[in-house]
Amino acid sequence: MTVTQLNQADRARFSNAVGFAFENSPWIAETAWEKRPFESVDDLHARMVAILEAAPVEKRIALIAAHPDLAGRVAREGRLTPASRGEQDSAALGRLSSEEIGRFEAFNSAYRARFGFPFVICARENTKDSILAELETRTRNAPETEIANALQEIAKIARLRLHDAVQNG
Amino acid sequence: MTVTQLNQADRARFSNAVGFAFENSPWIAETAWEKRPFESVDDLHARMVAILEAAPVEKRIALIAAHPDLAGRVAREGRLTPASRGEQDSAALGRLSSEEIGRFEAFNSAYRARFGFPFVICARENTKDSILAELETRTRNAPETEIANALQEIAKIARLRLHDAVQNG
Repeated sequence: MTVTQLNQADRARFSNAVGFAFENSPWIAETAWEKRPFESVDDLHARMVAILEAAPVEKRIALIAAHPDLAGRVAREGRLTPASRGEQDSAALGRLSSEEIGRFEAFNSAYRARFGFPFVICARENTKDSILAELETRTRNAPETEIANALQEIAKIARLRLHDAVQNG
Repeated sequence: MTVTQLNQADRARFSNAVGFAFENSPWIAETAWEKRPFESVDDLHARMVAILEAAPVEKRIALIAAHPDLAGRVAREGRLTPASRGEQDSAALGRLSSEEIGRFEAFNSAYRARFGFPFVICARENTKDSILAELETRTRNAPETEIANALQEIAKIARLRLHDAVQNG
């Protein structure tokens, strides 16, 4: 699909095409639709991020909480969204030893116990080892810092997802 | 399991036994464990609810956001937690006509678009019709009201789950 086609789509078709960019949160695409037309994929992305930044705190936290654990039970049981599955695979999280799975589980639990929401990172820009290192380091952050970090990572994830689905032109 | 046995359990066993009472949020049980012993199931429940009420806003919102949509895609694809599945079944949400599924989907989307988190209600204390009516009504509330309503419903769900798993004595 091209940006031109997206600019001509009705709300439902628009949401079907790019609603997945923000995990389980098509409301961001549906609000962005009202801001048509977009000049490029990055223009659409910037509008979506601005909608997210302007949203009240409960919507921003709920978006973070809509993400699955990395290398978690949901992933092992094949219950990820297609986009998340591809991303976790790109960091080789589908091929962990049982010792590595144990480390992910322990770090994910500690992170969730501290913040209440899951650890979010743009897996496609990381490796298994850099993810584990970040997970351990970020667990020590203040909650406000970690909310900001998670939203920044979510914006990176969304940008890559949009570029997968839409071409400029 | 009895309250006496629970009072003697170590943290991991305690979390395994009652961590499921709050959806995908065993940190509440793990914090409650430090407050042993408990006199009764309702005493344990009251301590857990107090932990939740004292938690920072991001943990309360993340708990709400950890719930599945009622009669949603996750339910239809068999991806609910066992506790949620039994609860949705008790309100006959597994036996909806396609027209009823369409109404749930439309109302759930409108609710999520407004608040960012899913509609939560204690399904075992409701019927299909009372849930749909509440879903429509509550979508018009202010966000702070709806955060409070969701947490109240979560406390009711947790109380029934605890009574399923633990006997007084």
